[in-house]
Amino acid sequence: MDFRSDNTSVCAPEIMAAVHAANSGAASAYGADDSTKRLDAIFSELFEHEARAFVVTTGTAANSIALASVVPPWGGVICHEEAHIACDECGAPEFYSGGAKLLPVRGPNAKVAPADIAGVLSRHNRSPHAVKPAALSISQTTERGALYTRAEVAALGEASRAAGLAFHVDGARFANAAAALGASPAELTWKAGVDLLSFGATKNGAMGAEAIVAFDSARAEEIVRRRKRGGHLLSKGRYAAAQLLAYLQDGLWLHLAGRANELAHRLGEAAAPFLSAPVESNQVFINPGNQALARLRAAGALFYDWGGDDTGEARLVVSWNQAEAEVEAMCTLLRVLR
Amino acid sequence: MDFRSDNTSVCAPEIMAAVHAANSGAASAYGADDSTKRLDAIFSELFEHEARAFVVTTGTAANSIALASVVPPWGGVICHEEAHIACDECGAPEFYSGGAKLLPVRGPNAKVAPADIAGVLSRHNRSPHAVKPAALSISQTTERGALYTRAEVAALGEASRAAGLAFHVDGARFANAAAALGASPAELTWKAGVDLLSFGATKNGAMGAEAIVAFDSARAEEIVRRRKRGGHLLSKGRYAAAQLLAYLQDGLWLHLAGRANELAHRLGEAAAPFLSAPVESNQVFINPGNQALARLRAAGALFYDWGGDDTGEARLVVSWNQAEAEVEAMCTLLRVLR
Amino acid sequence: MDFRSDNTSVCAPEIMAAVHAANSGAASAYGADDSTKRLDAIFSELFEHEARAFVVTTGTAANSIALASVVPPWGGVICHEEAHIACDECGAPEFYSGGAKLLPVRGPNAKVAPADIAGVLSRHNRSPHAVKPAALSISQTTERGALYTRAEVAALGEASRAAGLAFHVDGARFANAAAALGASPAELTWKAGVDLLSFGATKNGAMGAEAIVAFDSARAEEIVRRRKRGGHLLSKGRYAAAQLLAYLQDGLWLHLAGRANELAHRLGEAAAPFLSAPVESNQVFINPGNQALARLRAAGALFYDWGGDDTGEARLVVSWNQAEAEVEAMCTLLRVLR
Amino acid sequence: MDFRSDNTSVCAPEIMAAVHAANSGAASAYGADDSTKRLDAIFSELFEHEARAFVVTTGTAANSIALASVVPPWGGVICHEEAHIACDECGAPEFYSGGAKLLPVRGPNAKVAPADIAGVLSRHNRSPHAVKPAALSISQTTERGALYTRAEVAALGEASRAAGLAFHVDGARFANAAAALGASPAELTWKAGVDLLSFGATKNGAMGAEAIVAFDSARAEEIVRRRKRGGHLLSKGRYAAAQLLAYLQDGLWLHLAGRANELAHRLGEAAAPFLSAPVESNQVFINPGNQALARLRAAGALFYDWGGDDTGEARLVVSWNQAEAEVEAMCTLLRVLR
Repeated sequence: MDFRSDNTSVCAPEIMAAVHAANSGAASAYGADDSTKRLDAIFSELFEHEARAFVVTTGTAANSIALASVVPPWGGVICHEEAHIACDECGAPEFYSGGAKLLPVRGPNAKVAPADIAGVLSRHNRSPHAVKPAALSISQTTERGALYTRAEVAALGEASRAAGLAFHVDGARFANAAAALGASPAELTWKAGVDLLSFGATKNGAMGAEAIVAFDSARAEEIVRRRKRGGHLLSKGRYAAAQLLAYLQDGLWLHLAGRANELAHRLGEAAAPFLSAPVESNQVFINPGNQALARLRAAGALFYDWGGDDTGEARLVVSWNQAEAEVEAMCTLLRVLR
Repeated sequence: MDFRSDNTSVCAPEIMAAVHAANSGAASAYGADDSTKRLDAIFSELFEHEARAFVVTTGTAANSIALASVVPPWGGVICHEEAHIACDECGAPEFYSGGAKLLPVRGPNAKVAPADIAGVLSRHNRSPHAVKPAALSISQTTERGALYTRAEVAALGEASRAAGLAFHVDGARFANAAAALGASPAELTWKAGVDLLSFGATKNGAMGAEAIVAFDSARAEEIVRRRKRGGHLLSKGRYAAAQLLAYLQDGLWLHLAGRANELAHRLGEAAAPFLSAPVESNQVFINPGNQALARLRAAGALFYDWGGDDTGEARLVVSWNQAEAEVEAMCTLLRVLR
Repeated sequence: MDFRSDNTSVCAPEIMAAVHAANSGAASAYGADDSTKRLDAIFSELFEHEARAFVVTTGTAANSIALASVVPPWGGVICHEEAHIACDECGAPEFYSGGAKLLPVRGPNAKVAPADIAGVLSRHNRSPHAVKPAALSISQTTERGALYTRAEVAALGEASRAAGLAFHVDGARFANAAAALGASPAELTWKAGVDLLSFGATKNGAMGAEAIVAFDSARAEEIVRRRKRGGHLLSKGRYAAAQLLAYLQDGLWLHLAGRANELAHRLGEAAAPFLSAPVESNQVFINPGNQALARLRAAGALFYDWGGDDTGEARLVVSWNQAEAEVEAMCTLLRVLR
Repeated sequence: MDFRSDNTSVCAPEIMAAVHAANSGAASAYGADDSTKRLDAIFSELFEHEARAFVVTTGTAANSIALASVVPPWGGVICHEEAHIACDECGAPEFYSGGAKLLPVRGPNAKVAPADIAGVLSRHNRSPHAVKPAALSISQTTERGALYTRAEVAALGEASRAAGLAFHVDGARFANAAAALGASPAELTWKAGVDLLSFGATKNGAMGAEAIVAFDSARAEEIVRRRKRGGHLLSKGRYAAAQLLAYLQDGLWLHLAGRANELAHRLGEAAAPFLSAPVESNQVFINPGNQALARLRAAGALFYDWGGDDTGEARLVVSWNQAEAEVEAMCTLLRVLR
């Protein structure tokens, strides 16, 4: 019963097959191969908008390079205080941007609200003493598994535009959001004012492939340069591109994410009395206390504590390929805790 | 009645005279002049400890270069959320350190407490995902005019050492603290575990001269290099050095600061019903409401709002040379508000 | 007849099989998986010395992170002016180091000589005005396909140590060097004074896997932090680790590189009159003039010009899996040019 | 007989008087004082063009901040290999720009020629592998005391524009150039295609004041932010501004520089047989051999060797206030060497 992270899961067979198929014949290096060259068109079609897609192998690279392309060194990035960029990337956004500052806000379920933006702006309006807020970054799904509805994204997009902020979405689990919301990729991004998306695939069935999706090609050269300079331009680009192509083929990405979401809801029902956040995607947060967590572990469940040591809270993440039997067994354990 | 800042004041006559006196004959450039070469000895004597003093012209430079010498790019600096380094330096610490992160804590009167350190550490213990807390930086006096007693500094020094943190003091108003506390410079710094001090003179009577004081000469080369690289090695170093020498001569620094502190206390008594922070040095924070502040301004008082727009709170700063008549007039205005 | 680069080649079947085999069961994320955890031991055995191996996916990342761990922002890196780090990484070493400076030297076949070091040092000895030379970085094989013999590496190691420089080897084609020289990995690295090696696998049969090999574990934390911060810590680390393990298994790396070297020598013999650099590994540089190059291309050969446009010089790179028939056909074309 | 540098000289009496005069009454901090506010108009008048002037205290700060405002982190700066930014600023341009690369060219008298630009461009045209040349920076006067004529500056301006490069002039000794050339500041800058000028005053009679002069106000916010972030926004800005105002008053700057130039020519005539560069401003380079240099020193002359240790070459710099008697005595010594 391993619910530690969707990063522990294997690569989906369709994607592995594509990697295999890519392993044939010479191919131009550094992204000039045929697979990589198809990405812009494929992503443009998926998003119903001209888009540029830049492959990298980690979400941290995607987030940092995307943000650095719109935030000057003296700029600030409004984000939730629990955001991955704030807590889990060892300062990568600061590194790539040349020392920009994250401007964290608080709020339930790791969500940013439009009103938060105004608050940050009012505290950072003394040029040149305060840094200049330059971007909003949200996670979809959030670090608490929550979703932003289309309307919520659009409201943030509106607030960002009004404040002159670029709008970035960390979509490490964008597939889970899209599957859960039933909204189109377009509706959740550029139609709602999003400028840049970190489109994740790794957690949802790829080996290691993410795309920075830019809806404004004016940022392309900067992203290309920053990616190269960060050591993220793959010489044999075909393998990562092949992963992304297979991931998007025939809706595989939504299918895998939808399955994980559904199983997570089962866990959520079993853990209803202990839920510390609503279950909206493939993550389940429970707060049954340290003793109960110890009992779950004693019964063979693997998961991480959340929010620090000994908080009595834990996170359960369901992977795209999580065995139903594992989920059922975990549900049983959770019901016993009641 | 100008209480906007101690930065609006002129240079003290003793210091201006020293600048004048320095203007004679050829002198070696880039800090090899006789005045600059005396600084290490003078500061070592003042602090009763071998010390290295590195001249710069701004507090921002002093703070940033000092912190960068002890905080790696992936490190964090624990500080108060109202700290000058956090709010007023446009990200200079992030710039000089190569993208380190400030880790702000909350607390009354802009003071950091030892317990705050433990809190930050527990939230940043997942290497390599979280940044590594590497330094504590406090302001003495604080951005709210408060003081850390010797015991309080020592407790923070103890906590820093236990946590493997370097300990930096932003002493833009260190003179005001030393004068108010009646403690020796040594007691407020290295004897209490302080590693690096930004020793300010500009606000308290100099034209533009600050010293990074390092109590461990192992940091010297790094500070020298970072200062040069930051464009802060003055070619004609004699003039800034002369300011510092005059500032320390015969206790001028304490005399000037003591006078400002005393006048601030008079303001504080007059404003007693509206004080939003205890008056401990040369800054007075009042919270009489927007209408009252408007009346003060209508009567000719100059000062800045505090904490944002329309908070009804204001800061009054007394300069080393503030006219007693100005203070008296302001006291009268404040008493009328009651 | 594709001799553009060894980056155009596919992944070796043994390595692809290992990737496949890794795709089973849950595995801890972020390098805590079993394959990654074996790397230190495997590399220590290969190098007959305690070593730490840090996986990344590109040579640029390996070089930049390695160098940043030993070069301060105000430091300099002595390298050949044709070095990959100087010409082909879009300033990645400058980015990762926080703005260090490359200090290029000239010399035949892209090789650095011990005397070059003295020259750079004498021009950079005015602290703090000049940057401080902090590392030597050589490429083995060089960007001109040349080799450093054991004695040559050792002489550079000696000179580096004497000058207080860290010694880094860009081993994007280290396998080709080791195969050609018949020396042990140990003899070519730490026994010769090398501190850090970028150990390449991608060009020689992997999909995308390189290792930063550190012979002094004191640099480990810095490398770990810089890798994470650069976005190079793979969440599903098992796949890259599996590539490296297969690459080293039963001498596969030397076998593949040796084959490419041998075929390159055949090309070299055919092109003997036009060689612009001695053929010592898997790269062949020819200078038959623009007209001759045009004729080769007209006959179906793919390769890159070298040294700029219209220089009449070209580079032919032989991949691990280059078809013998392709080599023979190219030899025929080259002989005709005579 | 001190010919070490124009940095060893005192502050001119007119400038010191202005500093004194500025020391009266409260003044707004951080550049909002009346003196600083006059600078834009004064510089606009001087340059016969709308200009923004940003005060800093060192030439290194002026150069680095100016360049960082036009060069992205992945950009390159074409400059002479003996340029101050390349040799004497400990990597400050790299620091401020976030790791851009200097692209040095060679040539007599430390001058860049238009043809050099084409050479650099042709070697840096492989995006994204090579850095992108983004600016040309020349020194006027050069590090060898040479001048660029109006026509030469204009030719470089033309070449820069054609190549999409910003054009920066390091004018640490711009006064010496303007005085020697008899050209207007406008003719030597924006009329010739210059975008940014580091306008020096310190070497020519100020205590410590330089201005970044921007002819395109679109760069203003970036410069303002980078200056603050670099710790170069002076809180008591009036003193540096007063220096610049006095420096420009009634042509003082040209008068002082002209005198130094004239005295240098006298030295040049006396040293005619040993000149290693033509004498065009206030610097004289001689190459009489080590023995001769030792004799000069034995006779009391102070100066620096040039180009490394024991090259037999030396630099003599004449300051604005160099005593004629000193010059005459030195001339006598030089004549004896013949």
